Amino acid sequence: MEFVNDEYYMSMALDMAEKALGQTGTNPVVGAVVVKNGAIVGIGIHLKQGTPHAEVHALNMAGELAEGSTVYVTLEPCSHYGLTPPCSERLITEKVARVVVACEDPNPKVAGRGIAMLKDQGIDVQVGVLRDRAINLNKKFIKFITTGMPYITIKSASTLDGKIASRAGDSKWISNEQSRAMVHVMRHQHQGILVGIGTVLSDDPELTTRLPVPGLSPVRIIVDSSLRIPDHSKVIRDNQAKTIILTTAGSDRGRVKELEAKGIQVLSCGEGPKVDLSLALSLLGKEGISSILVEGGGRINGSFIQQQLVDEVALFFAPKLIGGLESTGNFVFEGYDEMKDAVTLENMSVEVIDDNVLIKGTPVWKE
Amino acid sequence: MEFVNDEYYMSMALDMAEKALGQTGTNPVVGAVVVKNGAIVGIGIHLKQGTPHAEVHALNMAGELAEGSTVYVTLEPCSHYGLTPPCSERLITEKVARVVVACEDPNPKVAGRGIAMLKDQGIDVQVGVLRDRAINLNKKFIKFITTGMPYITIKSASTLDGKIASRAGDSKWISNEQSRAMVHVMRHQHQGILVGIGTVLSDDPELTTRLPVPGLSPVRIIVDSSLRIPDHSKVIRDNQAKTIILTTAGSDRGRVKELEAKGIQVLSCGEGPKVDLSLALSLLGKEGISSILVEGGGRINGSFIQQQLVDEVALFFAPKLIGGLESTGNFVFEGYDEMKDAVTLENMSVEVIDDNVLIKGTPVWKE
Repeated sequence: MEFVNDEYYMSMALDMAEKALGQTGTNPVVGAVVVKNGAIVGIGIHLKQGTPHAEVHALNMAGELAEGSTVYVTLEPCSHYGLTPPCSERLITEKVARVVVACEDPNPKVAGRGIAMLKDQGIDVQVGVLRDRAINLNKKFIKFITTGMPYITIKSASTLDGKIASRAGDSKWISNEQSRAMVHVMRHQHQGILVGIGTVLSDDPELTTRLPVPGLSPVRIIVDSSLRIPDHSKVIRDNQAKTIILTTAGSDRGRVKELEAKGIQVLSCGEGPKVDLSLALSLLGKEGISSILVEGGGRINGSFIQQQLVDEVALFFAPKLIGGLESTGNFVFEGYDEMKDAVTLENMSVEVIDDNVLIKGTPVWKE
Repeated sequence: MEFVNDEYYMSMALDMAEKALGQTGTNPVVGAVVVKNGAIVGIGIHLKQGTPHAEVHALNMAGELAEGSTVYVTLEPCSHYGLTPPCSERLITEKVARVVVACEDPNPKVAGRGIAMLKDQGIDVQVGVLRDRAINLNKKFIKFITTGMPYITIKSASTLDGKIASRAGDSKWISNEQSRAMVHVMRHQHQGILVGIGTVLSDDPELTTRLPVPGLSPVRIIVDSSLRIPDHSKVIRDNQAKTIILTTAGSDRGRVKELEAKGIQVLSCGEGPKVDLSLALSLLGKEGISSILVEGGGRINGSFIQQQLVDEVALFFAPKLIGGLESTGNFVFEGYDEMKDAVTLENMSVEVIDDNVLIKGTPVWKE
């Protein structure tokens, strides 16, 4: 049984917001619940960038009952004119009595101003109810709004000897069906998916979201420093999602034009010979891509780790040992001499998925 | 991590509906989620009797996006004109493509007609996604709509030797603070609360819902066969909630009129000398009370069990032994000679609440 208190209604708002993960673009997911005289009178979530915020939907449902109500909202109500008018103004106009906020908006355009506006009008405001959960829910948004860089999740599936393919290059399949289904949920919840040209050449993947119900496919991002991608690749010709190719200044200009003519966006990321990943991410951020799932293979993963560009890793392990002196590992990078210098994970979680184990965590950078 | 599939959206609808337990009167709690092109475009719950159903709120939020959408709803959409127009018609008008229903409406006025209406119009209807959870969520409603009798939950707090008071009658407190707080959640989620006149005379309780946030107080129902209740009792004079007194035909008519003049409703339940509990429950059902929390003490609890009027028990146990040959037990009734005839519980759940244990279950009647 659950206690009925502020946390009861805030957890409802958070639960609703959580279900919208992936569909709000560069906006946060937000939930709101309006409570009056001991009962819920309105609910709302933010559905999509450019459409009404959670509070607006919930206040619309509440109608005249909004006056004197308590509004639970998972993120500080906005104070600025963006694509929609400020929610703080709306809460004031509706004469709500109390606003309970899970966490402050990290958006520098808001950052406490929404709360201050409400308090200035004599509204009782409480901040911090289920704050940690609210912050975690919007970790991708928070990274993006405060740095302009997309949130990077590395996904990998490997054997227990850390290999993502056999010595002959076979990798179908390492993880089990449920684990592979979860990867599609992760795709649904990221705005971009990134692989290396090697993966495109060897597997010709679709890189779309395939769920038992329709889902949202991320923008497909291919790291291809010398534009080796063939026209017959699915990501070039299937139109199932937008495709962006990351390349270098040295790439053939004619080929760039050919690809652009096919509707493919090509971003030049440094002089080369390799794509400058850090520059690439800031360019992708400017394109409005606030989160990227890296399904890149060992070398891509290794580069991201070595350059400290990773926010989260999600590593599926299958109960197999494949061996092979040259088999590709899940993180191929130069490495460190001393174990104390290893990249460690914090906030670790472990999930058993039938006979697979999913280990998630956030890397800690030593310097 | 959660899979994204039909269950993903249906569990969202069920989670939202669950938070409204207690506020829909004799109506069921219902949640609805509208999904289009891989994203949520509308959400709704039924808030209160006589106000729009869950589907209507969710379709209003979806607006033009409702056309071609999938609507997840925890209970079969209604097909009849009640206090609001039928939701099946609205779904048809909105041209939704698919409706996923958790469980059929047990209301004889609906009972499959809502689903049939949708199918007749060529809408793809799937029934049974998370059915068991949906049925359990509305167990009170289902009992009431199919029998006209309120759903009865017996709550009791006892020592490990099954006593609800010491030999001197002391009972403050047996259970811990969290357990007692949970009882207030149970009150919030029932329409009526029932005690015997003995409890009123000895404790003069308020019988209201006291939560860290405002809650809904149930109708207070006092079993008082010979109208011994004094005018100074809180339930008579505090106006914090409606009070109904159950009595017998033999009660003093003048006293009945006095109580009625104070706004107290008096129901005559049989010839006496004791209140006919079964008749009382059917009269209370006619008054629109669809669920009752019995906090009655050992004799009341025993009578309800012996007369097989109980749908659920919620028994809090504290780690204490109080003894006393005459101390009142949690269920005082005549009993059976053989253990095989004992009333047993099924669907048992056990919850540890700090140093208390809450055991819940549904009685199985032998005949």
